[in-house]
Amino acid sequence: MSPSGVDKGELKPEQLLSIDENAQVVNGRSGKPSDVTLLHLRIVKQRGAGAVLHTHSVWNTILSDLHTAEGGVAIEGYEMLKGLQGVPTHEHSEWLPIVENSQDMQALAETVAQTLNKHKAAHGFLVRRHGLYTWGETLAQAKRHIEIFEFLLETMGRTKAFRSL
Amino acid sequence: MSPSGVDKGELKPEQLLSIDENAQVVNGRSGKPSDVTLLHLRIVKQRGAGAVLHTHSVWNTILSDLHTAEGGVAIEGYEMLKGLQGVPTHEHSEWLPIVENSQDMQALAETVAQTLNKHKAAHGFLVRRHGLYTWGETLAQAKRHIEIFEFLLETMGRTKAFRSL
Amino acid sequence: MSPSGVDKGELKPEQLLSIDENAQVVNGRSGKPSDVTLLHLRIVKQRGAGAVLHTHSVWNTILSDLHTAEGGVAIEGYEMLKGLQGVPTHEHSEWLPIVENSQDMQALAETVAQTLNKHKAAHGFLVRRHGLYTWGETLAQAKRHIEIFEFLLETMGRTKAFRSL
Amino acid sequence: MSPSGVDKGELKPEQLLSIDENAQVVNGRSGKPSDVTLLHLRIVKQRGAGAVLHTHSVWNTILSDLHTAEGGVAIEGYEMLKGLQGVPTHEHSEWLPIVENSQDMQALAETVAQTLNKHKAAHGFLVRRHGLYTWGETLAQAKRHIEIFEFLLETMGRTKAFRSL
Repeated sequence: MSPSGVDKGELKPEQLLSIDENAQVVNGRSGKPSDVTLLHLRIVKQRGAGAVLHTHSVWNTILSDLHTAEGGVAIEGYEMLKGLQGVPTHEHSEWLPIVENSQDMQALAETVAQTLNKHKAAHGFLVRRHGLYTWGETLAQAKRHIEIFEFLLETMGRTKAFRSL
Repeated sequence: MSPSGVDKGELKPEQLLSIDENAQVVNGRSGKPSDVTLLHLRIVKQRGAGAVLHTHSVWNTILSDLHTAEGGVAIEGYEMLKGLQGVPTHEHSEWLPIVENSQDMQALAETVAQTLNKHKAAHGFLVRRHGLYTWGETLAQAKRHIEIFEFLLETMGRTKAFRSL
Repeated sequence: MSPSGVDKGELKPEQLLSIDENAQVVNGRSGKPSDVTLLHLRIVKQRGAGAVLHTHSVWNTILSDLHTAEGGVAIEGYEMLKGLQGVPTHEHSEWLPIVENSQDMQALAETVAQTLNKHKAAHGFLVRRHGLYTWGETLAQAKRHIEIFEFLLETMGRTKAFRSL
Repeated sequence: MSPSGVDKGELKPEQLLSIDENAQVVNGRSGKPSDVTLLHLRIVKQRGAGAVLHTHSVWNTILSDLHTAEGGVAIEGYEMLKGLQGVPTHEHSEWLPIVENSQDMQALAETVAQTLNKHKAAHGFLVRRHGLYTWGETLAQAKRHIEIFEFLLETMGRTKAFRSL
């Protein structure tokens, strides 16, 4: 985990914290793991993920907000969906669930656990007005998922502007 | 061809595959050529292209979707059209055909072949919700065509937002 | 302060001017401090700021214009608000006041002083069709505030386009 | 002048052509000066410019098209206007004329000459669906004008989307 309250652009390798399944730092470094550690651990546990990534982007924030009422974003028919692990065709419907944001990390981790349980095929989820979580067996796979989701959310957001007219 | 399933940002020169006209690897390297190899070969054959390029961009994906019903995008009256090989004036109408996406590469290659045959003056085409193909006698010319089309598709997409109001 | 009339991209460390509380250059360098020096000094004085930053961005200019009638922009419910010093939750309403632009720096500094006085919790303000001011105890904190405000203004501006439809 | 038909990203200093007032190459290099040489020479002559710059950007192309009927774009009330040479305040109205595009360079140069004559205070002009021209006493000043106009055209274009709703 990255430590809490550090500018990510200034983060140095030696500041990274190794933690155990109870979020205790085990590599002897000082620093408090990021607030969202419980969420990462829950995803690792339920999805068997080797890497979990979290991004705050303009378009993922916008879509997490505009689609709150539906409880998620349906992404369908795009070639780029094939970049998600195990998706062999663009004729796929990916449901990206949206969960309400909360500062109560225990409560939010519980909501995330239920969401992951309910949507077993989901490759990621959005936290409303907060950001995107996705994961992978490896860091490279998780990074690929970020790129795919960010591309598709921007594409859908810009397309939505035309559809709404 | 680039090999299938490799992060393009991490691609090394020694991973590139030389293939023959039957898509067989001839430079003794391992790796499966990208899924879209048949499309590239068809373009090379029908247009006598020395280089074929393919991009997934936000704006080419959006326009390939919004203009599906018309079967293509008409690009007219822009100075940048002069960047397309053999176009001497902005008073030119470029028809950029759109073909439906498919995971059946034989079928898609056939559709592309018919499209190229029907629109002999076209410098590129879009695959719906997938991306842009363009080509050139040389790699530099194909790259120039990518830049021209991407610029014009973004310009037309943003302009369309005003026209629709 | 940076000197007036110098391309910021070409600015060299030895051109930076140290000034006292009366805007007099005290590090023996030539050059006139930027026009907005009085504004910076007022913010330092009223907020006890260690660093004041000012940006001209497309989105801060647009929102400073579109929200003129309300006298400010209300930013609410975004996780990124936690990046503002002392804000512990996304359930926060940040009021970013807008002041009218003026070339009379004494008058503008006076307006700013009144605005800061009236909105004691504000972490920044906009000058209409001009730009954003924000500050911090340290340069790192002021830089973080710029990043947070610019991200949120772009996100809100793009969201507003959907809301208005 | 840059030579015609060369990728600007690959342009080397030794390819630049020195020309006289009749567009003849005088530094003994081969290559044909860019098509728009006559326009540059006309601007140099009428404005006494030391440098003339020309850009094709998405936003300058869009606005040159959307404002054709008015014959120009009025830019008013922005602080960034102070970046234009001789403009001391944001309370300034800059008229950026639009001329119709043409491949007849003699005719286009004539139109530009008349436009410059009619709008003596203009710091630049747009060619419809083509791009922006601006200039300065020095290269640094012309570059500053490009930055100012590109910023303002993008800002106005994005604002226009809200105004039209």
